[in-house]
Amino acid sequence: MSSTGEDMYGLVERLYPLCRSITGDGVRATLDIVGEYLPLDVHEVPTGTQVLDWTVPQEWNIRDAYVADTTGRRVVDFAASNLHVLGYSVPVSATMPLAELRAHLHTLPEQPTLVPYRTSYYAPTWGFCLSQETLDALPDGEYEVRIDSTLADGHLTYAEHVVPGQVAEEVIVSCHVCHPSLANDNLAGIAVATFLARELAERTPWYTYRFLFAPGTIGAITWLARNRVERVRHGLVLACAGDPGQLTYKRSRRGDADIDRVLQHVLTASERPHRVVEFTPYGYDERQFCSPGFDLGVGSLTRTPYAGYPEYHTSADNLDFVSPEAMADTLAVCREACAVLDRNRRYLNLSPYGEPQLGRRGLYGSLGGRSDAKDAQLAMLWVLNLSDGEHSLLDVAERSGLPFASVAAAADALDEAGLIKAGSP
Amino acid sequence: MSSTGEDMYGLVERLYPLCRSITGDGVRATLDIVGEYLPLDVHEVPTGTQVLDWTVPQEWNIRDAYVADTTGRRVVDFAASNLHVLGYSVPVSATMPLAELRAHLHTLPEQPTLVPYRTSYYAPTWGFCLSQETLDALPDGEYEVRIDSTLADGHLTYAEHVVPGQVAEEVIVSCHVCHPSLANDNLAGIAVATFLARELAERTPWYTYRFLFAPGTIGAITWLARNRVERVRHGLVLACAGDPGQLTYKRSRRGDADIDRVLQHVLTASERPHRVVEFTPYGYDERQFCSPGFDLGVGSLTRTPYAGYPEYHTSADNLDFVSPEAMADTLAVCREACAVLDRNRRYLNLSPYGEPQLGRRGLYGSLGGRSDAKDAQLAMLWVLNLSDGEHSLLDVAERSGLPFASVAAAADALDEAGLIKAGSP
Amino acid sequence: MSSTGEDMYGLVERLYPLCRSITGDGVRATLDIVGEYLPLDVHEVPTGTQVLDWTVPQEWNIRDAYVADTTGRRVVDFAASNLHVLGYSVPVSATMPLAELRAHLHTLPEQPTLVPYRTSYYAPTWGFCLSQETLDALPDGEYEVRIDSTLADGHLTYAEHVVPGQVAEEVIVSCHVCHPSLANDNLAGIAVATFLARELAERTPWYTYRFLFAPGTIGAITWLARNRVERVRHGLVLACAGDPGQLTYKRSRRGDADIDRVLQHVLTASERPHRVVEFTPYGYDERQFCSPGFDLGVGSLTRTPYAGYPEYHTSADNLDFVSPEAMADTLAVCREACAVLDRNRRYLNLSPYGEPQLGRRGLYGSLGGRSDAKDAQLAMLWVLNLSDGEHSLLDVAERSGLPFASVAAAADALDEAGLIKAGSP
Repeated sequence: MSSTGEDMYGLVERLYPLCRSITGDGVRATLDIVGEYLPLDVHEVPTGTQVLDWTVPQEWNIRDAYVADTTGRRVVDFAASNLHVLGYSVPVSATMPLAELRAHLHTLPEQPTLVPYRTSYYAPTWGFCLSQETLDALPDGEYEVRIDSTLADGHLTYAEHVVPGQVAEEVIVSCHVCHPSLANDNLAGIAVATFLARELAERTPWYTYRFLFAPGTIGAITWLARNRVERVRHGLVLACAGDPGQLTYKRSRRGDADIDRVLQHVLTASERPHRVVEFTPYGYDERQFCSPGFDLGVGSLTRTPYAGYPEYHTSADNLDFVSPEAMADTLAVCREACAVLDRNRRYLNLSPYGEPQLGRRGLYGSLGGRSDAKDAQLAMLWVLNLSDGEHSLLDVAERSGLPFASVAAAADALDEAGLIKAGSP
Repeated sequence: MSSTGEDMYGLVERLYPLCRSITGDGVRATLDIVGEYLPLDVHEVPTGTQVLDWTVPQEWNIRDAYVADTTGRRVVDFAASNLHVLGYSVPVSATMPLAELRAHLHTLPEQPTLVPYRTSYYAPTWGFCLSQETLDALPDGEYEVRIDSTLADGHLTYAEHVVPGQVAEEVIVSCHVCHPSLANDNLAGIAVATFLARELAERTPWYTYRFLFAPGTIGAITWLARNRVERVRHGLVLACAGDPGQLTYKRSRRGDADIDRVLQHVLTASERPHRVVEFTPYGYDERQFCSPGFDLGVGSLTRTPYAGYPEYHTSADNLDFVSPEAMADTLAVCREACAVLDRNRRYLNLSPYGEPQLGRRGLYGSLGGRSDAKDAQLAMLWVLNLSDGEHSLLDVAERSGLPFASVAAAADALDEAGLIKAGSP
Repeated sequence: MSSTGEDMYGLVERLYPLCRSITGDGVRATLDIVGEYLPLDVHEVPTGTQVLDWTVPQEWNIRDAYVADTTGRRVVDFAASNLHVLGYSVPVSATMPLAELRAHLHTLPEQPTLVPYRTSYYAPTWGFCLSQETLDALPDGEYEVRIDSTLADGHLTYAEHVVPGQVAEEVIVSCHVCHPSLANDNLAGIAVATFLARELAERTPWYTYRFLFAPGTIGAITWLARNRVERVRHGLVLACAGDPGQLTYKRSRRGDADIDRVLQHVLTASERPHRVVEFTPYGYDERQFCSPGFDLGVGSLTRTPYAGYPEYHTSADNLDFVSPEAMADTLAVCREACAVLDRNRRYLNLSPYGEPQLGRRGLYGSLGGRSDAKDAQLAMLWVLNLSDGEHSLLDVAERSGLPFASVAAAADALDEAGLIKAGSP
C-alpha cells in the first residue's frame, strides 16, 4: 500500500505543472500521462456540439501571460504558476495604469499570501490572480499586461477506461480533469481513480467498471448526452482524495441507493473516523448524475469535502497538501466498496423450515453448551435466516452488525454445501 | 405590528365584559362587535335541530345573579364578574343556610384568591363560583340566592367570514366564542383570527379562507353538520393566542398533513422558541375536525396550550394576562403560515437531464472558482433538482434547510426563465 | 403471588436432580412431574424419524459415570452432579494415564471452581466436566474411567398442554426441557410456563394457548415438522426465567409482530427495569419458529438473556441462583402480556363524524370547565378517535400513552353504549 501511495503521489507530481482547463491541450497532456498508467479511450467532441441544455464551448489554449512593470520585470507571471491567469481569459495586450488594471486582478484579502483560482468560462473577459501581498506591494504607475491565449473552435476532450466485468451492468467512477495546479482538487482524485482501475483489472469484477476522466460539469454533461445511462447501476465521484482530513461520503440524491449503503457500511466497519452527509445539488459531477431526469445511484467520496478547507481553490492546494498515505487510504476504501458492491447478492435458503443441520455438514462446532459461538457460525445463521429472496448480503451485514466479509464467507460456505442458492444482486 | 397589536388588544378589551355562553345574547353581542371589524355572515340554528350526534340545546340568557346575606349585601355578584355564575345555571330564587348552599358553590382551594370558570351545559343545575377566600369569610347563616336566567327554545348562533381566493379549496380558521370573561381563552384567539382575516383580504390569496366564530364543541359540530367539508384542504384552530408563553403547535390527527409541516417549518425557520406537540383528542375544536369520519388536516395553534397555565379557566385569565405583543407575535406566525400554504406548489423541471445552463440565462454568477455560492443560486439548484413532480416547494425547503421564501423566489425566477412549470399544490 | 412463587420454586427443586438430555428417561421423568401440575399430552417420536432437515437421534440413557484413582476413590462422580458427564457420552470403561485422559476433560480455567455444562449430541465421543481446581489437584498416574450409558434406538419425547380458547387461533408458549441440573436454564422457564398454563385455564381465554415442553432445537424442529403452524398467531419462548437480573424481551424476526408490541407495551407500562433487544438467529427455539420458512411472530422472554450471566451453563446455575420472587415477576409479565393479546381488538366507531355526545349516555363528567379530565374519559376519546377499523386497542394504548387496561375499559364502556363495534383482533 505504501508503494501504491508513492506511485499515486508520483502521478500527481507529474500532472501538477500542467495548465488544465475545461478544454485544450492541458487536458490532452494530462490524459497522455494517465494513459501511461492505464489504456484510455480519448474522445474529442467538436465546439458547438449540443449536449443536453449546453453547447460545447470554444477551445482555450494559452502559451504565456504576465503583468510587467515599466522596467519589464514580470510582477505576475503565468510561467511561475498557471493559477495566475483567470481561466479562459481572452487574449489581451495592453498598457494601463494600476488603477485601471485593478478591475482585472483577483486576490484573497483574508488569505493575503495565497493566489486564488478563478475562471470565467461562459462570460468572455480576462484577468490575473495574485496574492494580496503582491498586489499591495505594486506601486502605482503603468503596467504592461499580456495574455497570449486563443479561444477558437476545437474540441472538448475526455477519456474513458473500461474494466470488463462478468455482467454488462456498470459502475461508473468519475473524476474531473479541468483544474490546473491544484493537487487535492483534483489530481489526487485522478490518481486514486487510475490506480483503482489498475487493481480492478487484476481480476474480472462482477460489474463492468467505467472510469471517466472529464472536465467538470460540461464534461459530465457531454458524457451523459452521448451515452446510454440505463446500464449504470452504481457510481462514485472521486475528488479531494489526498488531503489530511477524514473521509467524507456524500449520499446520492436517492439517499438509500446501494452505493450509499455500501459506503456507509464500509466506512463504519473500517472504524475510520469519517462523515456521511446528505446529498446537496452542489459540489462535483454528482450534480449531473443525480439530476432528476437521470437520478442515478451516484455518490461522492472525498476526504475534506468541496470548499471545506482553507486551501480550497488557492495556491496552497499544492503538492505539500496531499500525501501518499492519504491517497492510499482513500484507495483502500474504494477497493473495499467495490468488493462489497461486486459481492453483494440475494440468496435463497433452500432449507428454510427450521435451521438446517449444519453439524452433519461440518459447518458447526460439534461440542455444544459453550457460549462462545464463533462469528463464522453466527454469520451462517444470519445468512440462512435472512435468505428469503428479499435480503441481500449487505442487508445481512447491516442487520447483524457483522463485517460484510464474514457474511460473504458464510454465504460461500453455505452455497458450497448446497444450502442456499444465489439470486439477483 | 405594534399598531395591530394594540388594535387587537382594543378588541379584546371591548369583548371582555360580555357574558358569553354556548348560546344566547352574549354570543350575539360578541359577533356584533367583531362585525365592526369584519363583515360576518351570522347563522341562527333553532333549538332542537339535530346536528350529527347532538341536538342544539335551549338558549340561555341571564340578567342578574347573586348571593346576598341577611342584610341584603351581595357577597357574590354576577354584576362584578360573569364568572360568578355557573354557566347555563337554571333560574333559582330561594333562601337557604350556608350549609345547604355549599353544594352549589365552586371554588379553587389551591388558588384561594381566584374565581373558577365552570359550566353545566347538559345537566340542569345552578351554582355560583367564588374564591376560596370569599367562601371562607362567609359566616354561617341564611343566604338569599337568586339567578335571573332563562333557558328556553331559541337559537345557537355562529358566524362566518370568507376571504375569496383564487381557488375554491378552503383553509378554515376556527375560534371558539363561548367563554365569558376569559381574555386568553379565547378573546385573544378571536382577535387574532379577526385581524388575520383583514390582512388576507388585502390581497387575493390562493386558497379561499373561511373564518369560523362559533361556540366550542356544539358550534363546530353544528357547522360540520351543515356544511360540505370536502372543500376544506387545511385548517387551524386558534386559541390562547395572547399569553406570555411560547407558541405551541398541536398537529392534526394525521400528524403529517400539510398544515402540520407548514407550521413546523415556519416555527423552526423563525427561530422563535416554540413547541410542536402530537395530536390528542382533547383540547379545542380540532377534536371535531379531526374526528375519524372527517379526519381533516386541521391543527391547533396556541401560545401556552389548553389547561397548561395556572390562570387557565380562572379569573386570572384577565386583561393583564394577555398583551398586544403576544397577539402580534401569534398573528405574525399565522401570516407566515398562510403565505407558505398559499405559495406551496409542485413544479416540473422542464430540463431535467443534467443541470440547465443557468449562466446563459443570467441566473448564475459568471465568475467560477469561488466557493461562496449564494443562497439564491443554491435555492435554484435545489428547486431544479427536486422538481420531478413529486416534491413541493415545502419539500424543497425542508430537505435543503433553506427558508421557504428563498425557495419560492428561486421557483419564481426559474418559472420566469421557462425552466420549470407549475403543477398542483 | 408470593405463594405461586414458592410453588414454582418447589417445582424447580423437584426437577433439579434429574439428568435430562435431548432424549431419554430424564425427559420422561421431568414430564411426569410437570404432569402432576398440568395434564400433558406426551409424544414419543421414534429414532430415525425424518423431521425437516434433521433425523431423530438415538436415545441416550445413563446410569453411572466416574473417574477413579488407583485407590478406587471417585475423583469425578456423576452421582454428585449430572453435569460431570459430557451429555450424550458414549459408554467407556478403561484405565488410562492422566495425560491421555486430559483430552476428555472439560473445565472453565477462568472460573476455576465451577463445573461446565457440555454436550456432544451429533459427534460420538465421551468426556467428563469438572472444575479446574479439581483437575489441578489430580496427581499424575493411572485413572479408571467408566461411563455406563447407552445409545440405542428409542424415542424423542416431548409434551403439549392446550388451554382451549374462544377461537382456534393459537398462542404457543415454548420452553426447553433438555438441560440437566441447571436451575435458571431452564427449570425456571418450565415452572413459569406450567403455572401460566394453570392460570389461563381458570378462564376461557380468547386465543387457544398451546404449551410446548420439548428438548431444545431437535424438539422444536420435531414439533414444527409434525404440526400445522398456520393456526399459530403469536408465541413466546420462555427461558432463564428465575435469575435476579432484569427482564429482557427479544423481538421476533419480524421485529414488529403483535407479540413484540405487546411485550414492549407491557414492560414499559409496568415501569419495571427491562430491556427489549432485536432478533438474532441465536439463542433458544425462537431460532426455529423464526426461520424464514415459518417466520412466526414468536419472541423470547428471559430475565438475563442467553449466555449473558457468568453462571450460564455452569454448576453455579443452581437452586441458589433462582428465586420465587424472580419467577413470580416473570409470570406476572407473561400474565399481563396474555391479557393484552387476548383483549386486543380493532373497533369501528359507529358515530365517527364529530364526537358523539358522551354526556347524555352518562359517559362524561357533567361539570364543564374543569381541566382535570379523567384518564377514563381521555381513554374513551382516544378509542373513539382511532376506531376507524385501522387501529387496534394496542395502537390506541401506544399512541395515547395510556395503559392498555384503561383503553380496554373505555372500549368496553363505549361498546356497551353502542358507540363502537368490535371487529377483528
